[in-house]
Amino acid sequence: MHSEPQRGFADSEFEARTRNAQSLMAQQGLAGLLLTAEHDVRYFTGFHTLFWQSPTRPWFVFVPGSGKPVAVIPEIGADLMRRSWLDDIRTWSAPSPQDDGISLLSDLLAPLARSGATLGVPKGHETALRMPLGDWERLIRALPGLHTADAAPLVQSLRMVKSDAEIEKLAHICAIGSATFENVPEFVHIGMPLDACFRAFRREALAQGADDAPYLVGAAEPGGYRDVISPPSSTPLAAGDILMMDTGCTWDGYFCDFDRNWAIGHASADAQRAYDVLWRATEAGLAAAKPGNSCADLFHAMSAVIRELDDNGGDIGRLGHGLGMQLTEQPSHAAFDHTELKANMVLTLEPSLSYGDGLMMVHEENIVVQDGGARLLTTRAAPTLPVL
Amino acid sequence: MHSEPQRGFADSEFEARTRNAQSLMAQQGLAGLLLTAEHDVRYFTGFHTLFWQSPTRPWFVFVPGSGKPVAVIPEIGADLMRRSWLDDIRTWSAPSPQDDGISLLSDLLAPLARSGATLGVPKGHETALRMPLGDWERLIRALPGLHTADAAPLVQSLRMVKSDAEIEKLAHICAIGSATFENVPEFVHIGMPLDACFRAFRREALAQGADDAPYLVGAAEPGGYRDVISPPSSTPLAAGDILMMDTGCTWDGYFCDFDRNWAIGHASADAQRAYDVLWRATEAGLAAAKPGNSCADLFHAMSAVIRELDDNGGDIGRLGHGLGMQLTEQPSHAAFDHTELKANMVLTLEPSLSYGDGLMMVHEENIVVQDGGARLLTTRAAPTLPVL
Repeated sequence: MHSEPQRGFADSEFEARTRNAQSLMAQQGLAGLLLTAEHDVRYFTGFHTLFWQSPTRPWFVFVPGSGKPVAVIPEIGADLMRRSWLDDIRTWSAPSPQDDGISLLSDLLAPLARSGATLGVPKGHETALRMPLGDWERLIRALPGLHTADAAPLVQSLRMVKSDAEIEKLAHICAIGSATFENVPEFVHIGMPLDACFRAFRREALAQGADDAPYLVGAAEPGGYRDVISPPSSTPLAAGDILMMDTGCTWDGYFCDFDRNWAIGHASADAQRAYDVLWRATEAGLAAAKPGNSCADLFHAMSAVIRELDDNGGDIGRLGHGLGMQLTEQPSHAAFDHTELKANMVLTLEPSLSYGDGLMMVHEENIVVQDGGARLLTTRAAPTLPVL
Repeated sequence: MHSEPQRGFADSEFEARTRNAQSLMAQQGLAGLLLTAEHDVRYFTGFHTLFWQSPTRPWFVFVPGSGKPVAVIPEIGADLMRRSWLDDIRTWSAPSPQDDGISLLSDLLAPLARSGATLGVPKGHETALRMPLGDWERLIRALPGLHTADAAPLVQSLRMVKSDAEIEKLAHICAIGSATFENVPEFVHIGMPLDACFRAFRREALAQGADDAPYLVGAAEPGGYRDVISPPSSTPLAAGDILMMDTGCTWDGYFCDFDRNWAIGHASADAQRAYDVLWRATEAGLAAAKPGNSCADLFHAMSAVIRELDDNGGDIGRLGHGLGMQLTEQPSHAAFDHTELKANMVLTLEPSLSYGDGLMMVHEENIVVQDGGARLLTTRAAPTLPVL
């Protein structure tokens, strides 16, 4: 394995992200951005903690039209936020259900409201307001004159093109994921309950250097699987099963997201055929993943191969997506998404299909788009369905 | 270790939860509940998947005034939801940014809007609307006549009192966490980088039977630590450090949440004193955790002991909380929370204090409130600061 990249980012990275946002804000007539979601907050500040898993406390970052972002956060995070590049950190002792940061935010946003300015708030596709809706309603009522507009396209357009430092982290966790999958034949065997396979997989990912393996789904069923989002059963692996594991492991807050398929003992001709179609659909995706093409182009390139076996390409809704601080990010490889591919976008290629009697198969690789074409971040899956 | 409980729940459990909700809805004049958050959806349906880690797709459950809940979900979850006790499952092929379930929801809620009824939506403390804010605004505009009211107190009051089957799962994961902490002296040693300790801890928790260890924070610093929410550094453990690890491990979707402290090599008198105060504050909490007392009573019982060393009890904001499907749930052991303790509430006792020159220490156990008093679910921490 290659050596570990450095953790965190230089302040210059956050400065550049903020400058880029401010330039788009000026173009779009936004006087500021209010961010409440973990990944948006981390993107502009570097604030990185698992504490977001507790729903108790809201966290806010305001990006003004110029100058550094301002943090409005619970006191418990002050020490960690002070290590960031921010200067203006306003805190309260949370939880405080009567006023969880709302009066601090009102004070901060009052000048915008007085001037009838527009505040950008991510409220579009793939976003959620990470604060109580009642507090949001209260905040808006307290700031008559303030307009709000959806800032999801702005933030997502920045986040979907990665910096070199981000790509280094993504390449690192993809390499860890690949090494973990390569070792599966050493720790998975016929007769092993599926939940034990999952536990062994997570332990191996950690041993390979992952910080964590928070996402692991999959299935093992006779002849093929029907569902790709369930927790594992405790059914022992049996000859004739098709096993799939799909993992999102993390390193320094960045995800890989890919899967592998195996036949247990022996593979049916149907499963081999499905695997071959998906493998070649991925090849078509790799060839199409170059700057200037769109996500829809990628979708159609993969779809054309999938159609050899499946008229509608399954019901997953898309054939891949962006990848970064979140397991899935914008854009989507779907007929509706005309986002232009750009160098330094990190993407999954995730063709899927239905076959046989209600069976499905999924296949996934992670890539970075470069000027010459796609570079694989994952070790390419075997061209034929491997047998365990 | 005791034997593993059964995974999942009998349908009767979901029937009872729904009946209880409907009885409160009738009292509060709510014609239905709209749920968007993972844990609320799982509470009423049993729908359990890690797929929520992807922000792409919203998921909705509607609890009517009588009868079974209705699911409005992406097609990718249909197979799993059909295994639940629900009959009415409405799906769309997601993602579909132009209409991610909104017209299906509009149809479902139209009768309520026509009759000017009130829809309960969790919008209070500790909740977040898990769908794009823009879609929510669109939905409300499409349903003139519909009133909404905060259903957070209703849902939280149900969820904070656990069933016997839930307590069995919580006891199981607490036992796994305890066994993991007991083995720390076997896999942690002087000179080991803190991030390697974390990795080893997660591997051990999995080996002990946890499904995952998604939450692990902590610190190791000379003489004591200053921050309890950071990711681990790669600094090697050194003699004189105080090491703390705080974990949320999961089993079948239920969390433990507790921590342990150790002195590396030797312990300062200050750290021993802080540990002793917190240990006795926990004893005071254990004695006060009985039906009829309030969360504020619990807070004051622990605070009285903490005050021996720290006038304000640190800035964590509370001294424990509810525990269940989420790492932290309602209620809060804080002066502002007058929730009455009831049998079958599962709680953390989490006294913390500041001492010395900006140092802090935290201590945590998990309990279930019973008619006779508190029962520990975790193996009680050693009464004096253990030395590794």
